Amino acid sequence: MRKLDKVTIVGVGLIGGSIGLALKQKRLARQIIGVGHRKVSIDKAVRLKAVGQGTLDLTSGVKGADIVILATPILTMTKIVKKIAPHLKKGCIVTDVGSTKFEVVREVEKILPRGVNFIGGHPMAGSEKRGAEKARKNLFKGSICILTKTKSTKAKSLKVVRDLWSAIGAEVVTLSPKAHDRVVSQISHLPHMVIFSMLSGIDNGSLRFASTGFYDTTRIASSDAKIWRDIAISNGDEIVKSIFKFKKDLSVLEKAIKKKESATLLSIFKGAKRKRHLLTTK
Amino acid sequence: MRKLDKVTIVGVGLIGGSIGLALKQKRLARQIIGVGHRKVSIDKAVRLKAVGQGTLDLTSGVKGADIVILATPILTMTKIVKKIAPHLKKGCIVTDVGSTKFEVVREVEKILPRGVNFIGGHPMAGSEKRGAEKARKNLFKGSICILTKTKSTKAKSLKVVRDLWSAIGAEVVTLSPKAHDRVVSQISHLPHMVIFSMLSGIDNGSLRFASTGFYDTTRIASSDAKIWRDIAISNGDEIVKSIFKFKKDLSVLEKAIKKKESATLLSIFKGAKRKRHLLTTK
Repeated sequence: MRKLDKVTIVGVGLIGGSIGLALKQKRLARQIIGVGHRKVSIDKAVRLKAVGQGTLDLTSGVKGADIVILATPILTMTKIVKKIAPHLKKGCIVTDVGSTKFEVVREVEKILPRGVNFIGGHPMAGSEKRGAEKARKNLFKGSICILTKTKSTKAKSLKVVRDLWSAIGAEVVTLSPKAHDRVVSQISHLPHMVIFSMLSGIDNGSLRFASTGFYDTTRIASSDAKIWRDIAISNGDEIVKSIFKFKKDLSVLEKAIKKKESATLLSIFKGAKRKRHLLTTK
Repeated sequence: MRKLDKVTIVGVGLIGGSIGLALKQKRLARQIIGVGHRKVSIDKAVRLKAVGQGTLDLTSGVKGADIVILATPILTMTKIVKKIAPHLKKGCIVTDVGSTKFEVVREVEKILPRGVNFIGGHPMAGSEKRGAEKARKNLFKGSICILTKTKSTKAKSLKVVRDLWSAIGAEVVTLSPKAHDRVVSQISHLPHMVIFSMLSGIDNGSLRFASTGFYDTTRIASSDAKIWRDIAISNGDEIVKSIFKFKKDLSVLEKAIKKKESATLLSIFKGAKRKRHLLTTK
């Protein structure tokens, strides 16, 4: 890809910081600017060299940027876009890394002026950890990054963002915002909601009997509560649909347990195991 | 503990094999005999030195044993106990390693002759892997082993089995068979049922978007289907109760998602995270 002059990353936590480190390592931008809303986070990101320079001022941070990458909580994005919209140069591309896309893409596309294109993005990488100190330049290597395409999407802008993610090691898949939200509600949001609920119901006294299986199964419950609050609110419709389907599947299993239907139980357990093995081979 | 003369392990897979390796390393028994129902498994266990000698013949295998450890699928145990009961020496202790206790303990106590005591056991260790080749002498180190106590339990027999598990590194906790089944239905059986169901409902096409979080969350679905069929059948009542409670907790979350109740969502997610952290500090 063509080297960029200025990339601005708004929000320099685990994901924003890792993008900065990767862009720098691959020498993909002349300037990498980090914008934060707390001085301590920005100073940390600069110290860790996740960004070249840092600022608390959104307006000056995005001025003249070729690409602005929003790596902030989902529910703050619209507000941020409203603030930066008048200060973006013509031809600037705005993209994000949020876990839900339909609502954000719809709102942001309404706000941005002509000549500024928005490409929704969602790198399927990360962890339950937070903060620039957890950032890694290889975080996206071998991962998938979903980019969204709508009627307003310019092919040229999509290509720039696609090339950026490819250059830092991600495999890029393009989906509509709605298709994205449906897929991730199944593969990411449903598992989180199920594990959060399950942990809520377990007596503290039983926790000492947990084995390594339980430990691994519940790791995702360590994720940041505010990030998941935003996801639950901004992808509620699809998550509720996934929960509905899940409850039906669970009822089928429950009925087989009640009736001691050996063959049905075996078939469900074997089917799940086969599906899990499709993952291990990736 | 006093060195035992003869220990017989019926079923020399991951758990049976690991017990054999640990007993041998700690020199806790003069003879360790493995009994299997397939020559290839027994030969493998002997080759791996998980047991000193192997046999396919239950009757001769248990003859003269101080302790018989049943490490076979749960639903085979009653049948095996019926076969070996007439051949056990007076004072022999029979124990097991099955994941459910109430039904097994009730049935086995009915079958065993006077002078032979049964102590239900459940080492909370293992993995989704199978077979003696996965056995490790340290498998139980730092783990918890639950032993069951009933009106028929002789204190002396309980002490022998307790000392054996302590000697190979497990922390022993004594519970009634019913209390055991309730605790493990929460901490082990419910998570398995939930993950099996969840995987059943996920479209194959979505699997490519799975991140490491999904990978860890679903690891337990790789477990052996027959073992879980036996667990679902022999602890059905408690599992159904746990599923019922879980569905209620999930409905609370679902309602909060539908109504976009930010505070409720945060409270559920933070509560789950706090509970998960009680695990990490153990």
